[in-house]
Amino acid sequence: MQTYTAPLRDMRFVLHELHDSTSLTHLTGLEEITPDLVNSILEEAAKFICSTLLPLNASGDAEGCHYENGAVRTPKGFKEAYKTFREGGWGALNADPAYGGQGLPASLGKLVDEMVSGSNLSFGLYPGLSHGAYLALKSHGSDALKNLYLPKLVDGSWAGTMCLTEAHCGTDLGLLRTRAVPQADGSFKLSGSKIFISAGEHDLTENIIHLVLARLPDAPAGVTGISLFVVPKFLPNADGTIGMRNGVTCVGIEHKLGIKASATCQINFDAATGWLVGEPHKGMRAMFVMMNSERLSVGIQGLGVGEAAYQSAAAYARERLQGRSLAGAQRPDKSADPIIVHPDVRRMLMTMRAYNEGCRALGVWVANALDRMDRAKDSAEREAAADFVALLTPVVKALFTDLGFESTNLALQIHGGHGYIVEHGVEQLLRDVRIAMIYEGTNGVQALDLVGRKLPANMGRSLRRFFHPIAQFIHAHERDPQIGPLVQSFAESFGALQLATALVVQAGGIDPEEAGAAATDYLRMFGLVALGFMWVRMAKVAADAATGAAQDAAFYRAKRATATFYIQRILPQTGALLHAIQAGKASMTALEEAAF
Amino acid sequence: MQTYTAPLRDMRFVLHELHDSTSLTHLTGLEEITPDLVNSILEEAAKFICSTLLPLNASGDAEGCHYENGAVRTPKGFKEAYKTFREGGWGALNADPAYGGQGLPASLGKLVDEMVSGSNLSFGLYPGLSHGAYLALKSHGSDALKNLYLPKLVDGSWAGTMCLTEAHCGTDLGLLRTRAVPQADGSFKLSGSKIFISAGEHDLTENIIHLVLARLPDAPAGVTGISLFVVPKFLPNADGTIGMRNGVTCVGIEHKLGIKASATCQINFDAATGWLVGEPHKGMRAMFVMMNSERLSVGIQGLGVGEAAYQSAAAYARERLQGRSLAGAQRPDKSADPIIVHPDVRRMLMTMRAYNEGCRALGVWVANALDRMDRAKDSAEREAAADFVALLTPVVKALFTDLGFESTNLALQIHGGHGYIVEHGVEQLLRDVRIAMIYEGTNGVQALDLVGRKLPANMGRSLRRFFHPIAQFIHAHERDPQIGPLVQSFAESFGALQLATALVVQAGGIDPEEAGAAATDYLRMFGLVALGFMWVRMAKVAADAATGAAQDAAFYRAKRATATFYIQRILPQTGALLHAIQAGKASMTALEEAAF
Repeated sequence: MQTYTAPLRDMRFVLHELHDSTSLTHLTGLEEITPDLVNSILEEAAKFICSTLLPLNASGDAEGCHYENGAVRTPKGFKEAYKTFREGGWGALNADPAYGGQGLPASLGKLVDEMVSGSNLSFGLYPGLSHGAYLALKSHGSDALKNLYLPKLVDGSWAGTMCLTEAHCGTDLGLLRTRAVPQADGSFKLSGSKIFISAGEHDLTENIIHLVLARLPDAPAGVTGISLFVVPKFLPNADGTIGMRNGVTCVGIEHKLGIKASATCQINFDAATGWLVGEPHKGMRAMFVMMNSERLSVGIQGLGVGEAAYQSAAAYARERLQGRSLAGAQRPDKSADPIIVHPDVRRMLMTMRAYNEGCRALGVWVANALDRMDRAKDSAEREAAADFVALLTPVVKALFTDLGFESTNLALQIHGGHGYIVEHGVEQLLRDVRIAMIYEGTNGVQALDLVGRKLPANMGRSLRRFFHPIAQFIHAHERDPQIGPLVQSFAESFGALQLATALVVQAGGIDPEEAGAAATDYLRMFGLVALGFMWVRMAKVAADAATGAAQDAAFYRAKRATATFYIQRILPQTGALLHAIQAGKASMTALEEAAF
Repeated sequence: MQTYTAPLRDMRFVLHELHDSTSLTHLTGLEEITPDLVNSILEEAAKFICSTLLPLNASGDAEGCHYENGAVRTPKGFKEAYKTFREGGWGALNADPAYGGQGLPASLGKLVDEMVSGSNLSFGLYPGLSHGAYLALKSHGSDALKNLYLPKLVDGSWAGTMCLTEAHCGTDLGLLRTRAVPQADGSFKLSGSKIFISAGEHDLTENIIHLVLARLPDAPAGVTGISLFVVPKFLPNADGTIGMRNGVTCVGIEHKLGIKASATCQINFDAATGWLVGEPHKGMRAMFVMMNSERLSVGIQGLGVGEAAYQSAAAYARERLQGRSLAGAQRPDKSADPIIVHPDVRRMLMTMRAYNEGCRALGVWVANALDRMDRAKDSAEREAAADFVALLTPVVKALFTDLGFESTNLALQIHGGHGYIVEHGVEQLLRDVRIAMIYEGTNGVQALDLVGRKLPANMGRSLRRFFHPIAQFIHAHERDPQIGPLVQSFAESFGALQLATALVVQAGGIDPEEAGAAATDYLRMFGLVALGFMWVRMAKVAADAATGAAQDAAFYRAKRATATFYIQRILPQTGALLHAIQAGKASMTALEEAAF
């Protein structure tokens, strides 16, 4: 069975020792936040999640969702678990207290998301989508809509969805056909078919609030003609009670590689009543609020499942006796040594550790910027943070999900044949996490967003928000007696990234296809350097701490060893990526289409 | 649905244009082989396989195998397909004519294996295991055993298996517990439990011949005390008819990530009658004949599925309309351009092409060496070929399966959300091919075989069989007006491989853990350079051909573009791998076990 315990020690390290959580107390609403408070919430979350959601992961996968006559039944135990989740307020951690939320730091929410994803990714999608709907409505909805829907979404008695994709359009939403016709009372009648709607129908809540992209009759063609609507499954009465059933029907669910306990629905809207969110034809703007938040969350999903994969593999590698150490028998009392003695197994475990701990550090850095962007009193601080979040969002989404998938793949490999069968649960992790590389914009789309929008934004100002602290750190620590050699190796990769950036910006400015040809390799390079920055910083914190109290000495030693592993054995990939980028598009576009 | 047609044009290119199939006619038994004969057999195979096995791939996956009371029923259609397969003689292509085989070149067998794997990997395992059993019996069995069993295995009326793994031992066969007790009549009684037995029980043949590793009562401990036995499901009468049921029982089948139409069985032997194959305690030697052949075949499975993945993705990319080209609309008549116009989609397609065509070229090179090793009249030619096959076997197994999996992963990504659902068949390819990285020795074990056994073998003589022709080619063509620049880039990676080889041999000679720490990165580096050599050679053939007849001009242009893509964008990964290897084991072995 799957092994998972919340990595609380590392979470505390990242929150307080690496990123200094007390530096956020000048932000509006976070004045009272203390490390003790944060730690106790994380502990409670871990207890709840590992006792309630983890045990439903394998059974939910085996059973899947049931579809019958428009209704979807979630697997056994999900309804009860959702009720407990809701009652514990776990979906409201980051919601506004004005609507019943707890207003806690974004980092806390993301780390709880990580635990949920590590325990039960399918389950997490139900409240996850609700939070996305909450954000879009909160930022662009009228007061009337907000007052009616937000408290219900926050307390989890109603759930939310994002209805974007249609059969013929996913990435290219400009093609969408769902229509919205204005009514005399200010509402709209929506008609059309949506597919791939996560949590589009289920039995967890009394109502489901769909956020739907559709076209008004006078809409211009393409993405500039898309509006956003809120379309509830049941029309609410003015007092918030449930009224008539709306013209929204789930006509089927998908059979998928993974996340089988998450209902992926085909939803038909037949003259369904809805209300406009934000301005006409400006739906993409409102939807992007939701999507950006979701993209960070999806990145965190990759991390959560990657961590679960690591833990399962480490447990198996410690237990499985097979062969002898190349350095001579380590357990002569047993029939064989545990496979963790083999360097090649270590290589895989260390790779996963380096990915997971690096991503956790980077994720919290971005989450803290989310809080600064939303809550800082100083507009310069808000702008700097917003730049940083915009730049890092595609990186977190694509990198964390790519690496999460790689981790599940390594974990499966460590299990050998036992990883390929259902029993150990690790093949489920691989199947589940694979979706994260696709939804909320494929990772290729993230890469295009990075090179096409984020790099050139504000004449490169966003980029400087990221490069500047790195250059400063290198300058300050390249002669450090403890971490100097690591910093120097890191500086080489940073230099390569700067070179690649200049190349992509320059060549892409002349020929956008050159930027497109470089995009995925560039994003990976950017991500590897971002993790490298986290690792040299973590090495520094660990080195300083290790000279102090001895209690956590093993933890800090492991941090430094993992930093060294990452910098020496993973980060050099940036060199190969630079070569690939320098080669340009020619060999990719040379083939005529018919040759494929 | 899955798209697959046998890549006959490329197969002909590799067989005749790249590797010159007529150069094998001096080998015993291949005197009459002509390109026309080979081509017509490939065409027949393609027709049969694509019409018979491909249509059963998705249905076989959906239905899976059925287990009841010791019996296994294969999915609907498999029995009939196997009957046609057998009647067509497709399992006997490479078998000895003395036992009813066709004695055709190994390359032909491997390319037919590729087609079978690309169409229906699960199906292919049934005849595949029979061929492995045939090889082990043929090389180590007594004449009596050979005369009784081989004709039945060759004509496919009986099937074979390899029974190695037990619940507590997979890689480390020294731990195995199955016992064989000698009987007065020269037979043995075997008792024990085996797991993960592919094709261990099924309804395709009237008998199943298990090749079983077990210990004799006087066996020394460890792998030097293992003997090989043949244990039929039904005891054959002297005339080859079926007699009594033997004490062999299938007690269950595994629920797995993929290859669901292939029965993976738990088999109990309860005082089952068997006969010794080869000498007592020398079972591993006999089993390795089978395993080496299987390892090459498993590599080819990776290639076959990788090719199927590429074709599905290319078809989808040509059809799926989404977004516009960054260079301006390419199909202004349509609502959007096909996604194949996007450089990032091209990157994924070109990567798959480069992998598949490179692996096909390398696979046929190794297959030709198999024929030289078995059939050359000159002992020096036999020795050189045997060295080469031994060296390349772990590389083909691990590299082809790793890249095959990567290709399915890229193909899934190109399909976006449509790849994650069952409908398009691409997620099945990813699930199916994943086993190939594990069985017949995990890819980590292949890497250890390469650095630990094959590199140092015969004082590096094997290695020179591979390095020498590369150095010669570079010397001859580095100033070539057409392919010179590619050859120069390739030479850099070859230089890095030579450096890494010296390092691994040297450091590994002092400390075997250093070789273990380098193993996987080294194998990948070795494999990338081997593919690089195939690509520069293919570029040369294509360049020369392109100056000739114009008929196939598009084919040769595509070859050259793909060569350029591979050398410029993939091969530079060797630099990063060299860095990783140079870092040594320290950061991997630093962590105490408890820290994981």
